[in-house]
Amino acid sequence: MTNIFVDATLEVEEKNMLKEKIGAANLLFREELPVADQKKHFLQAEVAFGNLPSAWLKETTQLRWLQLESTGFNEYLWFQNSPQNQITVTNLKGMYGIPVAETAVAGIMTLYRATDQLALLKVGKKWIGKPLRHHLSTLHRRKVLIAGGGAIGGTIKQMLSGFQCEVTVLGKSSGDADIYTHEELDAVLPHMDVVISCLPETRETVNMFNRERLGLFKPKSIFVNVGRGSAVDETALVEALNTGKLGGSVIDVTHTEPLPADHPLWNCPNTLLTQHTGGGSSDEPLHKAFIFLDNLNRYLKGEPLQYVIDFARKY
Amino acid sequence: MTNIFVDATLEVEEKNMLKEKIGAANLLFREELPVADQKKHFLQAEVAFGNLPSAWLKETTQLRWLQLESTGFNEYLWFQNSPQNQITVTNLKGMYGIPVAETAVAGIMTLYRATDQLALLKVGKKWIGKPLRHHLSTLHRRKVLIAGGGAIGGTIKQMLSGFQCEVTVLGKSSGDADIYTHEELDAVLPHMDVVISCLPETRETVNMFNRERLGLFKPKSIFVNVGRGSAVDETALVEALNTGKLGGSVIDVTHTEPLPADHPLWNCPNTLLTQHTGGGSSDEPLHKAFIFLDNLNRYLKGEPLQYVIDFARKY
Repeated sequence: MTNIFVDATLEVEEKNMLKEKIGAANLLFREELPVADQKKHFLQAEVAFGNLPSAWLKETTQLRWLQLESTGFNEYLWFQNSPQNQITVTNLKGMYGIPVAETAVAGIMTLYRATDQLALLKVGKKWIGKPLRHHLSTLHRRKVLIAGGGAIGGTIKQMLSGFQCEVTVLGKSSGDADIYTHEELDAVLPHMDVVISCLPETRETVNMFNRERLGLFKPKSIFVNVGRGSAVDETALVEALNTGKLGGSVIDVTHTEPLPADHPLWNCPNTLLTQHTGGGSSDEPLHKAFIFLDNLNRYLKGEPLQYVIDFARKY
Repeated sequence: MTNIFVDATLEVEEKNMLKEKIGAANLLFREELPVADQKKHFLQAEVAFGNLPSAWLKETTQLRWLQLESTGFNEYLWFQNSPQNQITVTNLKGMYGIPVAETAVAGIMTLYRATDQLALLKVGKKWIGKPLRHHLSTLHRRKVLIAGGGAIGGTIKQMLSGFQCEVTVLGKSSGDADIYTHEELDAVLPHMDVVISCLPETRETVNMFNRERLGLFKPKSIFVNVGRGSAVDETALVEALNTGKLGGSVIDVTHTEPLPADHPLWNCPNTLLTQHTGGGSSDEPLHKAFIFLDNLNRYLKGEPLQYVIDFARKY
């Protein structure tokens, strides 16, 4: 029997589902154990589900597979150069693609159709109607650049197909993208109505949208960041928004989170701050549990797991 | 030479474009004429563009074609039983399909991704982030009913294809729809996550979403109305929203517009009031002018016009 230690944030229904499918005898839920015993039980586990403390992970000699309950794994980068790098670590990469992509598209449409302004008008019970119509835009047939050719980018591209957008995908050096280099990026940027970053954090992507590159954006274009905050120079972004160089932005991720109350992004016009809710969904615990179950079935059969993290490549 | 009287709301660029394409000599813009002469000039026109006063239209003996600058034409229903019914009246039906469809989809995504709440949080510079994630939903693979098989419904259906939604279209007695009768509608309603009305106002559609039918909706489903306000019993809708029977609504059209300040819809939870901005777009004057020009070319060549109103059928 496999000892499975669960530290993921799950609702009662999902916990019961796991107990039913896996067998309660094999499962230990951290939150159901006395605090003093938790670490001891973890150290006996062969499989763990959840974002466990690095200190515990450094001590384990039994763990074979760790299923994270996040996409990000910055706090586990030490695996790469440690003896623990024999532990297989998987993340929830696939799970967040759909909600993150929907936040990106919802954000763009919120700005184009002014549903953010309409929400504020509702609070004030203020009907302005007609004058607002002339400030609205449409996504139909817009030119969109998606920076990041992974699961999120692919999902966004598919969603935009219904709006007949002209999509260009910036990818890594190989794979299913349209352009690959910074030179190609700079050449297309002036023609794009919407630029969406869903880049992971790597040496190449940090500060990719620096001041110079933001200067290449088409006037009134919209910048969307649902990848990592580090991909953009926030000072330059704030300036571009405040001077009207950019038409608007949808920002899910920032350098510092929560965003400090005195951060200038709070005051930028036509800017929607989605507060890192991009991956969220009320079905999240269920989706998490399904992905873990699916991977567990593969693990027990000795099949390759899905969403294995390659720490050397950092995604 | 054809005398063309223009009373449509256009920007300078569009007026100049019309003068350039049609020839300034044939065109009279109402707003450029002394008030005392406006009606006299209209009565000499063979073609008019804009929503002209009914009183003037009842007097004209020269007018052959009236291009409205709206989709709705309730104020002109008297044409049907008047000698003036020999005048061809066209509306802007095609033009509003895309922005209206985008407001419908934007509204749904605003509720699912809570961008309305995020807009309010931004005003208060309040970062709540994580707790909000569990209240979010996704449009992906949802079951959607579109009531109304016309241009708007078809455009919405195409937009939803990118989200892999299961779409059912309720149409008239013939044409490109999936279901046609009230019985079929009632049978599918309990299974729908989203119900979108883009129905025109006809004898059959008035009060289609009455109390009984709203009672058939799936709990937590979303009701969207971008058609005509008269299609829904507003009192029953407000009750369904306030009791949590419905999960939310996106309301572009209401029985009374502007919505009175004491109307209970202002206070309904998870409700976005888009204030009849659905057809709006900053490119609206340009789109209007293009549709008029296109129809004028057809008129001058003696070809059938687009978007001719059938007053007998009321759409």
